[in-house]
Amino acid sequence: MVTIGFDKCPDEVYKRFEGRHIISIRDFDRQDIECIISNALSMAELLKKDHRQARHLLEGQRMGVIFYEPSTRTVLSFETAMELLGGSVSGIKDPKVSSAVKGETLADTIRVMAGYFYDFFVIRHYDEGSVRRASEHSRYPANNMNEGKTIPAINGGDGSNQHPTQTVCTDMPTVVKHFGTLDGLVYLFNNDLKNGRTVHSFVEGLMLCKPKKLYFCSPTQLRTPENILRECAAHGIAFEQIPRYEDALPEVDVFYDTRPQLEREQLPDDLKGKIRAVYTVRADEIRSKAKKEMIILHPLPRDSKFNSPEYAVDSLPQARYFEQSHMGVAGRAGLLCLLKGVRL
Amino acid sequence: MVTIGFDKCPDEVYKRFEGRHIISIRDFDRQDIECIISNALSMAELLKKDHRQARHLLEGQRMGVIFYEPSTRTVLSFETAMELLGGSVSGIKDPKVSSAVKGETLADTIRVMAGYFYDFFVIRHYDEGSVRRASEHSRYPANNMNEGKTIPAINGGDGSNQHPTQTVCTDMPTVVKHFGTLDGLVYLFNNDLKNGRTVHSFVEGLMLCKPKKLYFCSPTQLRTPENILRECAAHGIAFEQIPRYEDALPEVDVFYDTRPQLEREQLPDDLKGKIRAVYTVRADEIRSKAKKEMIILHPLPRDSKFNSPEYAVDSLPQARYFEQSHMGVAGRAGLLCLLKGVRL
Amino acid sequence: MVTIGFDKCPDEVYKRFEGRHIISIRDFDRQDIECIISNALSMAELLKKDHRQARHLLEGQRMGVIFYEPSTRTVLSFETAMELLGGSVSGIKDPKVSSAVKGETLADTIRVMAGYFYDFFVIRHYDEGSVRRASEHSRYPANNMNEGKTIPAINGGDGSNQHPTQTVCTDMPTVVKHFGTLDGLVYLFNNDLKNGRTVHSFVEGLMLCKPKKLYFCSPTQLRTPENILRECAAHGIAFEQIPRYEDALPEVDVFYDTRPQLEREQLPDDLKGKIRAVYTVRADEIRSKAKKEMIILHPLPRDSKFNSPEYAVDSLPQARYFEQSHMGVAGRAGLLCLLKGVRL
Repeated sequence: MVTIGFDKCPDEVYKRFEGRHIISIRDFDRQDIECIISNALSMAELLKKDHRQARHLLEGQRMGVIFYEPSTRTVLSFETAMELLGGSVSGIKDPKVSSAVKGETLADTIRVMAGYFYDFFVIRHYDEGSVRRASEHSRYPANNMNEGKTIPAINGGDGSNQHPTQTVCTDMPTVVKHFGTLDGLVYLFNNDLKNGRTVHSFVEGLMLCKPKKLYFCSPTQLRTPENILRECAAHGIAFEQIPRYEDALPEVDVFYDTRPQLEREQLPDDLKGKIRAVYTVRADEIRSKAKKEMIILHPLPRDSKFNSPEYAVDSLPQARYFEQSHMGVAGRAGLLCLLKGVRL
Repeated sequence: MVTIGFDKCPDEVYKRFEGRHIISIRDFDRQDIECIISNALSMAELLKKDHRQARHLLEGQRMGVIFYEPSTRTVLSFETAMELLGGSVSGIKDPKVSSAVKGETLADTIRVMAGYFYDFFVIRHYDEGSVRRASEHSRYPANNMNEGKTIPAINGGDGSNQHPTQTVCTDMPTVVKHFGTLDGLVYLFNNDLKNGRTVHSFVEGLMLCKPKKLYFCSPTQLRTPENILRECAAHGIAFEQIPRYEDALPEVDVFYDTRPQLEREQLPDDLKGKIRAVYTVRADEIRSKAKKEMIILHPLPRDSKFNSPEYAVDSLPQARYFEQSHMGVAGRAGLLCLLKGVRL
Repeated sequence: MVTIGFDKCPDEVYKRFEGRHIISIRDFDRQDIECIISNALSMAELLKKDHRQARHLLEGQRMGVIFYEPSTRTVLSFETAMELLGGSVSGIKDPKVSSAVKGETLADTIRVMAGYFYDFFVIRHYDEGSVRRASEHSRYPANNMNEGKTIPAINGGDGSNQHPTQTVCTDMPTVVKHFGTLDGLVYLFNNDLKNGRTVHSFVEGLMLCKPKKLYFCSPTQLRTPENILRECAAHGIAFEQIPRYEDALPEVDVFYDTRPQLEREQLPDDLKGKIRAVYTVRADEIRSKAKKEMIILHPLPRDSKFNSPEYAVDSLPQARYFEQSHMGVAGRAGLLCLLKGVRL
């Protein structure tokens, strides 16, 4: 594990990203992740100072979005990132008004759009692995696979599988901003660990780190997939599955809450009741048991039917989920610059 | 009632608007309204001369829209206004493809978007009062209510309640353009006065004026809400509820037609029939009874199932509803400049 | 038939286009078509060299789209064209979130939008003839038909009727790019020739040309409309309706495949089976029987339920449908310049 730190990414690592697809956290090594996080934090500083000064960085560049599932945060944060960098976004945000209703495959859609002068694609699809398969067609001309130009395709979420930019552009930079590191920390993942792709991406990213310990806290029916647990073991990472988060709370540095992904799996009413009773992040627990320096993350949206974290948590110093979603803009803007070889 | 006229807004009134939320017509005093109308009329002149000369006024600024109900005019007129001023619009135009389907509250949505470098929000929601509640979260950082920066939120319609920019950016500037004043005029409001939020906003705006008389013409089931009538009385404004508009027509200066708001209230078939028979604005009535200088306004859309005003009215000199919707662009552009302290 | 060639359009033909509506292929003469194709090919060259050099051509101009049916290619290619030329696109892409749900007619919608400072409209609607009727209202001010300014309206597809820019901006320029001419070629149209508006537009465009022969290959139930066949006869154009494409294949220069338009006509299962068995464009047939120089076109999308052309065809040298859809951007950009009198 060769690390380069989060300060500045050396040219040779920077260069690896030009024209690269961003599909899975598994495609990265430690240096890749550090380089992306370093760019996220530099961009956050730049935007904080004066976000109107970034407009030259990707001036006139065009992002095509192809979203087969609902999105607010992902599509709007990419759109915001592109606009702040002087570019623009267009594409398919609602498959019901696109050619998908006429039976077009994702591969054909991307081959058509690859001929429309786009500089990037961001794709969200309900099928696991679909974005990687689509990325193979993200080039123009389409029928000449040896020549042509690759257009970087970014996975904006494929089913329950992966959501890599949530991890490397949003979650990890927020952790590094607070702790200066990803290593040596205790992480707790809470609630629906089976269907939450942001958890899967984050934990797989931690395979490249040296966390002190991972806690997985979920109902039995919504446990972390076995292959992910096996991977933790294979990397010698200490982990424990626990039934309630309270007992572990005093040790935790990063508390990663999630919502039940009802759009992927129907849950029986008694399980929903149990989730409300046991897995809700409650202000009184945080106040009485958590470290002052702990940070609470959540990929959002927060489902008002479950209300976790409780709204009362929002005003606690540990609550960092809105700051985290704010980081997503800078993190994505930083990544886009990286893919185009634009140094910050 | 201190008036400043519609020519030019003094600096001290202009300054009141910087960073202000625009939620309800009740938040305004007479000077506020005159200042907004003055900006609408100045902007209309500027755009008429050469609409490509306005692009520097809000260059690079970003508007976030959050629309939970259908809209053509409101969202497109704001989008047009932003583009003409050099800015851009993005956001949620279809809640079905956003996080709302995952149970996110409007408050959470706006708190996330407040971290996305927007300069304004425009919100339309089906719940009365929802936009005011949401505006309290229109600041960043979200969890520090004492510091942070407020992002002006504009009510684009909340249920049957209010639609303030329809009144102050669209309807009133059209009246002032034609009559030079809002005072001393006879206004007639026609058709669904119960559910039409543009009527509610307009009449409440007239509480700050000295109209000669207000006529309310509607079926019994769709009468003006009692609280609005009480307010008229409290302000000493003469008004009369009438069953048919024809008898009052010779006196009327501003004829404000509306459509039955079937999306808010189902109507029995016999009432629909009566609306068609009695409340349709007919060309022959206008021709034979109305003043030449009368203006017919309508917030549009015109529902083709009811067809009021009749299409034959469109070519009469009194028909001003398309001119009125055109004014909405200048009026909104003028308001946005006001909220940013940009003088025209 | 006076021809001007595809090299450069003379000023007097260029001038005919300023402010013109683009509704039907029948509105064009031969010179019109050659001028549009010449602009498409010039623009394709310009964009190929450096597509960021076109941004001054229509800087700040605004296109309004009004789409009552799903679209990927048409709306995105216009959007791409406008962006590359320095303009922007906004409007109605989903009638479900617009005023159409409140009963607004297309005529009223366009009259409102005509007051919103748009420079062009592109309209797609399910009713044949609707776009021509709407174009009559594409002017501002709306209630003064003698003065006012016309805003060019472009037909983006009206029902099964016409899709003129598919023909003149996309299909024909691709043919001319490959053969240098539209004349003297053998064309074969395959599959659903009854409902495919791109076929209807293309064949009507060929009435202005001297094709060697047209083959129409479709199931009996989906034959080319009689009026189109009669028109071919009236223009002295040789044509033949054939049950299978294979026999004609060795003669064909331009093979125009289509998909069954299930959104316009439900087909019985046995017909669907027959379409799959007989009308699928198969790689082995192309390899063994077609000329090397033949080009296969398809308006796309390709319906994965029918899979024609087979995916194996994509890598054959004859496959030109992705190149064709790519041409659509340059072709539309060229047309927009033509409508504004901007010479390339």
